[in-house]
Amino acid sequence: MTLSDIEIAHKSEKLPIEEVAKEVGIEKSELELYGNYKAKVAVDNLENSKAKLILVTAITPTPAGEGKTTTSVGLSDGLRKIGKKAISALREPSLGPVFGVKGGAAGGGYAQVVPMEDINLHFTGDFHAIGAANNLLAALIDNHIQQGNKLGIDNRRITWKRVVDMNDRQLRHIVNGLGGKAQGVPREDGFDITVASEVMAILCLANDIHDLKEKLKRIIIGYTRDNDPITAGDLKADGAMAALLKDAIKPNLVQTLEHTPAFIHGGPFANIAHGCNSVLATKTAMKYADYVVTEAGFGADLGAEKFIDIKCRKSGLKPDAAVLVATVRALKMHGGVEKKDLGTENVDAVVKGMPNLEKHLENIQNVYGLPAVVAINKFPTDTDAELKAVEDACQKYGANVVLSDVWANGGDGGAELAKEVVRLAEQPNHFQFVYDDEDSLEQKLEKIVTKVYGGKGIELTPAARKELKHIEEMGYGHLPICMAKTQYSFSDDAKKVGRPEGFTITIKDVKISAGAGFVVALTGAIMTMPGLPKVPAAENIQVDDNGVISGLF
Amino acid sequence: MTLSDIEIAHKSEKLPIEEVAKEVGIEKSELELYGNYKAKVAVDNLENSKAKLILVTAITPTPAGEGKTTTSVGLSDGLRKIGKKAISALREPSLGPVFGVKGGAAGGGYAQVVPMEDINLHFTGDFHAIGAANNLLAALIDNHIQQGNKLGIDNRRITWKRVVDMNDRQLRHIVNGLGGKAQGVPREDGFDITVASEVMAILCLANDIHDLKEKLKRIIIGYTRDNDPITAGDLKADGAMAALLKDAIKPNLVQTLEHTPAFIHGGPFANIAHGCNSVLATKTAMKYADYVVTEAGFGADLGAEKFIDIKCRKSGLKPDAAVLVATVRALKMHGGVEKKDLGTENVDAVVKGMPNLEKHLENIQNVYGLPAVVAINKFPTDTDAELKAVEDACQKYGANVVLSDVWANGGDGGAELAKEVVRLAEQPNHFQFVYDDEDSLEQKLEKIVTKVYGGKGIELTPAARKELKHIEEMGYGHLPICMAKTQYSFSDDAKKVGRPEGFTITIKDVKISAGAGFVVALTGAIMTMPGLPKVPAAENIQVDDNGVISGLF
Repeated sequence: MTLSDIEIAHKSEKLPIEEVAKEVGIEKSELELYGNYKAKVAVDNLENSKAKLILVTAITPTPAGEGKTTTSVGLSDGLRKIGKKAISALREPSLGPVFGVKGGAAGGGYAQVVPMEDINLHFTGDFHAIGAANNLLAALIDNHIQQGNKLGIDNRRITWKRVVDMNDRQLRHIVNGLGGKAQGVPREDGFDITVASEVMAILCLANDIHDLKEKLKRIIIGYTRDNDPITAGDLKADGAMAALLKDAIKPNLVQTLEHTPAFIHGGPFANIAHGCNSVLATKTAMKYADYVVTEAGFGADLGAEKFIDIKCRKSGLKPDAAVLVATVRALKMHGGVEKKDLGTENVDAVVKGMPNLEKHLENIQNVYGLPAVVAINKFPTDTDAELKAVEDACQKYGANVVLSDVWANGGDGGAELAKEVVRLAEQPNHFQFVYDDEDSLEQKLEKIVTKVYGGKGIELTPAARKELKHIEEMGYGHLPICMAKTQYSFSDDAKKVGRPEGFTITIKDVKISAGAGFVVALTGAIMTMPGLPKVPAAENIQVDDNGVISGLF
Repeated sequence: MTLSDIEIAHKSEKLPIEEVAKEVGIEKSELELYGNYKAKVAVDNLENSKAKLILVTAITPTPAGEGKTTTSVGLSDGLRKIGKKAISALREPSLGPVFGVKGGAAGGGYAQVVPMEDINLHFTGDFHAIGAANNLLAALIDNHIQQGNKLGIDNRRITWKRVVDMNDRQLRHIVNGLGGKAQGVPREDGFDITVASEVMAILCLANDIHDLKEKLKRIIIGYTRDNDPITAGDLKADGAMAALLKDAIKPNLVQTLEHTPAFIHGGPFANIAHGCNSVLATKTAMKYADYVVTEAGFGADLGAEKFIDIKCRKSGLKPDAAVLVATVRALKMHGGVEKKDLGTENVDAVVKGMPNLEKHLENIQNVYGLPAVVAINKFPTDTDAELKAVEDACQKYGANVVLSDVWANGGDGGAELAKEVVRLAEQPNHFQFVYDDEDSLEQKLEKIVTKVYGGKGIELTPAARKELKHIEEMGYGHLPICMAKTQYSFSDDAKKVGRPEGFTITIKDVKISAGAGFVVALTGAIMTMPGLPKVPAAENIQVDDNGVISGLF
């Protein structure tokens, strides 16, 4: 009988978090406990770490699943198994999707972080704090308008939305301020899910609390009728917002099932934001560990590119090696097989799907300049012939392929991958950004599309061209780009799996996240408020009279 | 120079919460730490306590302020000073109002609970959990309608609103579900502040997690076109809601400036809900202390009545004595003096204002059947002659008047009050409810108005009469009443200060809170979503680079 993730988690024996911390030299005085198994860790003296930073990324996602978080967790356990001081730094899951279809985001099988139900529910309250800071700013905006609108905010052009950490489609498009003059000024508005808030991206990119405050101050909430930006600083909102975030900014320490320390902190959207855990979590992990394993959202075209061009650029972090996660099943889907047929051996489909993996490997090695290993996240249906097809194809890139069996075997299943990672991280690398700060925004877009996606170039809609100009006029031309594109293809067409060629990417609109410090390029409709399915997962979640949760996954 | 509350709090030396807990016999194994100075306490074996329960209540509130929480905190310190094992059980403040005009709600001066900025901001996340549970139910309702509406919910008659812990008038009246068929079903809706959620009242009245789940299941979220109620249980929402509340239900332990333990847990609205801290906090305090000091919202006509008829009735709690808090300044306002003239001695006004205090004293002693002491919360402008006028008037009730100087002197300033409380709590009392379960809802309303408010009786609008009938038909006639009435008068007219007579109370509408288990009687427009003022307090709140907050109060 196969146990579910939550059953495996419940059977595991957790160590008090002080003991987990102590093993890597985090003193009790540096911890703020949240119960016995969670703690916030003080942030100071984070510079000049000699730790190796390992980025776990993946091929283009398919419905077959890849297992990036699971691999990250298992790799940190594997590194510990082979005697290395390892810590992972991962994203914090969003509450809302737990009640929809998604399930948890804390690894899986025997490569999980625990306590998984806490991590997936309120955890240490970071997301609630982010929501409160976001919504305080929103309330201050509408109150400012109600009280006379001295700043001249054009209430048709308020870009700041309220958030809730819930899948609640009913709030996507609303009209608020109804009910007469004492009840606000009517306007069109809408809610996003909390992880889509710019406050989330800011918290994840802040280098310290001072930097956090500066970033909050720069948030643009909308425009006047003269097209001048209005900021959170103009509304004097930044101090109170920072006060709400003073604890949320500290990284959260938990443990894997094998008691390897893990920082789980921050989880911005990977389309309209950069999709990585917080800079402070990564740097704090690097202060205490010799090897830090971190991940980035979606495939290596999106997540890894943003990790490098946004997170690393803004924080000074430099990765030492990358792990490219793939599954044989996903490669077969890139080779044209449908999900229902994935159980059947199909070497041809693997070979046909490999160009997707190859392009990502090229990008990691040649565009980003990092040594890479391909980690095949093992499934029982994988055949030797299929695996050999992957190995053969990777040989020409000089990249080894390692079977990762962490889902079934935890750290033991990740030890081989760990050894290869250690070998790679010792090698010199020529890590580089995809574009320079000095490039124009249009040049940056061109470079991402041609170098990373393998496309011919970009097309700008008139709206996008106009807004790019406005953003450069406002003085934000030096900012990096955050591409909001489908994660299912190198192109902007989700149906083009594998390694499409000859395409152009249409930039439909651009928007500035001046607080987080990037320019979002929108290539299609991006959903920033999910909905619930016909039968929400919430219906099956229970808690017994002893407080034990079931049905969560 | 007078220090502000936050300055006093910052100068105080806090003890690790384990030490505070240990002094009253709470073992470390029963604590879940939230940082070094906050903890949740395990709840079990709560029955059969021999502790004395002291209710702190007040005269009818005025803009001059009374200081109920400050007196409660100081009294617990005073009890400890005279050698008693004392714990206070108080309400948890709401986040939203902190950014408006209100300031904190954690006592004041040298009678405060700490860490005050944590208590006033996110604390242990209880209110965020309540908000999430509330909003999950809301999302499930609209998703149910979107997915086909099998239950036949009439979307014009959904009574369940979303909540946010923010003063945000813009959300009072909205239309949501706009944007086309994939984005929900358009309807009129609105947000309340989190403390107004029925989930808050439920959490505060739950005797254990099993009871919590049963109460959640019974929540009525709206009606069908046939006027049949739809419950959270019908939507299978109760399990997931309870899972979100599994930690929030545990009481939070903090300390006073003098290291007396204090439970701060739950804070429902005092108009549409019952305005008391959680049953579990009170009972947990009574498990460990010999004297437990608790408070109820507004004056003794509203807060104390609900404490008795709702909280005590549903939990089996029995108070042993009551403290009636007043200030000379407030009595002068009841005597007709304006706020700007309160600094001038005015014995006549005190005498003229005393009937307000006298009626509350009569109620406590004769209607509720409890021994009482009048605590005058001392102000520097109070004169001996004014204080003597209060004493003289109280003599005929056999109630002692004690000067409370806890704001300036903490426990030393509360020792005399503590001695009188101990004396009173040893006396036999004839504690009783205002009405019986078996009374009809109309009889219950009549009894509250005639016995407690001193009015002639009630008038029911046709709408109220119809809904009372519907509520009795649905089988809820046995529930207690929760009166939503202005707190500024015994009557339903806020301008009638002092002791008005000959009035009737008009019940404009009634609504059922079937989960919490009471029937709310509305006597006027009740604001369940506050707004921000012209210059919100948020503008002056800052956090420095070390994470120290200023400007909060």
